Amino acid sequence: MVHMRPVITLTTDFGNRDGYVGTMKGVILAICPDAHLVDITHEIAPQDVAGAALVVRSFVPYFPADAVHLVVVDPGVGSTRQPVACATPVGRFVGPNNGIFGHIWQQAREQHGAEQVRAVVLNNSRYWLQEISATFHGRDIFAPSAAHLAAGTTVDEMGTPIETLQTLPEQPPAFEDNRRIVGQIMYIDHFGNCISNIEARHLQQLGPLPELQVQVGKLQYAIAYTYASVLSGEALALLGSEGYLEIAVRDGSANQQLHIERGTVVRVERQAAS
Amino acid sequence: MVHMRPVITLTTDFGNRDGYVGTMKGVILAICPDAHLVDITHEIAPQDVAGAALVVRSFVPYFPADAVHLVVVDPGVGSTRQPVACATPVGRFVGPNNGIFGHIWQQAREQHGAEQVRAVVLNNSRYWLQEISATFHGRDIFAPSAAHLAAGTTVDEMGTPIETLQTLPEQPPAFEDNRRIVGQIMYIDHFGNCISNIEARHLQQLGPLPELQVQVGKLQYAIAYTYASVLSGEALALLGSEGYLEIAVRDGSANQQLHIERGTVVRVERQAAS
Amino acid sequence: MVHMRPVITLTTDFGNRDGYVGTMKGVILAICPDAHLVDITHEIAPQDVAGAALVVRSFVPYFPADAVHLVVVDPGVGSTRQPVACATPVGRFVGPNNGIFGHIWQQAREQHGAEQVRAVVLNNSRYWLQEISATFHGRDIFAPSAAHLAAGTTVDEMGTPIETLQTLPEQPPAFEDNRRIVGQIMYIDHFGNCISNIEARHLQQLGPLPELQVQVGKLQYAIAYTYASVLSGEALALLGSEGYLEIAVRDGSANQQLHIERGTVVRVERQAAS
Repeated sequence: MVHMRPVITLTTDFGNRDGYVGTMKGVILAICPDAHLVDITHEIAPQDVAGAALVVRSFVPYFPADAVHLVVVDPGVGSTRQPVACATPVGRFVGPNNGIFGHIWQQAREQHGAEQVRAVVLNNSRYWLQEISATFHGRDIFAPSAAHLAAGTTVDEMGTPIETLQTLPEQPPAFEDNRRIVGQIMYIDHFGNCISNIEARHLQQLGPLPELQVQVGKLQYAIAYTYASVLSGEALALLGSEGYLEIAVRDGSANQQLHIERGTVVRVERQAAS
Repeated sequence: MVHMRPVITLTTDFGNRDGYVGTMKGVILAICPDAHLVDITHEIAPQDVAGAALVVRSFVPYFPADAVHLVVVDPGVGSTRQPVACATPVGRFVGPNNGIFGHIWQQAREQHGAEQVRAVVLNNSRYWLQEISATFHGRDIFAPSAAHLAAGTTVDEMGTPIETLQTLPEQPPAFEDNRRIVGQIMYIDHFGNCISNIEARHLQQLGPLPELQVQVGKLQYAIAYTYASVLSGEALALLGSEGYLEIAVRDGSANQQLHIERGTVVRVERQAAS
Repeated sequence: MVHMRPVITLTTDFGNRDGYVGTMKGVILAICPDAHLVDITHEIAPQDVAGAALVVRSFVPYFPADAVHLVVVDPGVGSTRQPVACATPVGRFVGPNNGIFGHIWQQAREQHGAEQVRAVVLNNSRYWLQEISATFHGRDIFAPSAAHLAAGTTVDEMGTPIETLQTLPEQPPAFEDNRRIVGQIMYIDHFGNCISNIEARHLQQLGPLPELQVQVGKLQYAIAYTYASVLSGEALALLGSEGYLEIAVRDGSANQQLHIERGTVVRVERQAAS
């Protein structure tokens, strides 16, 4: 029988320049030497809790359900925000209770039942490092907690249960007159693709995709199938790989070339039959 | 006996900011939990297939021959370009058939014999994720295929054999009058070192290194042994670690300081005996 | 019994764009297939030996003591600077003898006794790759040496003992009149936090923290507990997670907003009792 190494993913806004991420990895390996460390990203924009929450939502469903996801985007470190751990049927989570895990926690409760989801405040200092700094709980509390979880400690042993995790305000798109959706760009990716909060299911309520027209600023787009549906350098709208409507430029950056940013309004209308 | 974990390397243009790389790692670990994931780079310039091909050529020879190399630089995703896997005596490869693997495939055939090299179109959907998006075959086709290869599935089981992989146009340097080589810069690295397509074997045809003169723009260089052969801040030409002639600035960036770019012409002449 | 995989950490200035890091990983895995590769950072500023030394000091104490730390920031590659390996009770180290390891080596000798610390020049070519380039000893000497160390070879087998490792000039802060400390910024991190060479123990000599006043340029700060002690966008001084006095801006960059750089002078005075 092959011994399965417990997976711990790391997602932070620490950047890839300093020793901070390495320090957390050292802490983990000192506690759980056979942990399988998997870097997700350390380039979350500094203090961008909402961006981190979106990234976490995107990769977690593809991991084995027993993976431990360590997420440290923690502008409130040293304040009253709580360190938490959460166990769900889709994965286990460790990080600050600042909204990063709210959506996943809520969704897991809805899909699997509230009794399948447990969360605790990480207040059992037995699972921390011995000295706790005021500014680096990633090293002192979160990394050792994730390592202990991966090594077999249960969430319940690590602290006091809490009923509710912090959630971020949801910004669903709005319907106008049953014939128009008004949404906004919520994330810009590395390629400059601009991803909106309008999902495939919203578009379906409006009408068949070929009859829909997307408007951003003064430009209008039909909804294309893939980047290669237009010529190199041309802009397009399409349903991205996670089911959200996005604006892209083939072989280019919609963010830079079209000056679309987080918050930019996106409208979708059904074309009048002519 | 130690259980050897199968190595899967990852090379993409996805950047290190979003969840895309993490998602692919999750897909792999869900299929092949003991895979040893090795990040090569995710900072290939967006859509730079030629740059990816050079990077792949540089690292693959140093890996164990049973490693699986997953390379996703895929501007044609969702179009008619084919997803492929290739098994050779120097490694196994998974990615789009857009030229990334052409040189390695060709070289493996020449060095080891065509019968030692097998390639298939990845059209057996049994080895894909269940839902296939139009824009993220890295997640839906390539990552699961690489994981299945690492877990023991053969290339032949994964699709239909093809005879030829796409290759990129080669740009060998030209000889003029048997006394001058005209080449060009084909890659700029992180340090700003400017690497040409002129190889050690080309220079040997021209004459002994100490008698050769390198010309780029208006500047001329002798061929130095190493960066420390000149003073800090000075420019030099040298044979780099992969055997290509490169232009560098000690403790600086030849790219920025000398305005050398990909495509800049490099001339090498043998000095007239005086 | 679980087989423990030997940890090799990687710290370089190679950046995350090229194949150089991947090549070193391939070399390691070909020699020591069950090595656990742990990326620390590849974004040390090019040729910044002092910055690398600080990063190494920050993460090493948190790793298991049998980890092998491969550090390649090597502006003198190909010159007379020596390749070294060093075994200490806090970890094993492989890289160029240019000062990167000086502080750790010295500290290990002081804390554990000189006989517990061994260093060798890596001149036993049996542990190198077969061909040695003039510009990439990371691939040809350091990576294979680290892999052999991790696989069980001792430091002593790998070369000739040396008594002293190169150290970097220390820049301790100065005391003036027993009432003022004059230090300087020695490191700027990813967040723009500006970390000085003034340590908690220096401040304690001056007086209780609440009575101390920090001065940088024309601005003065009390010493706060954590980032969240001030409003978003405000500047503060605090004791950072490694015990150094740092200047930060909550949810911002002190480096950019306050124009503080490496070398900027930091003064700390005890306030006169009123």
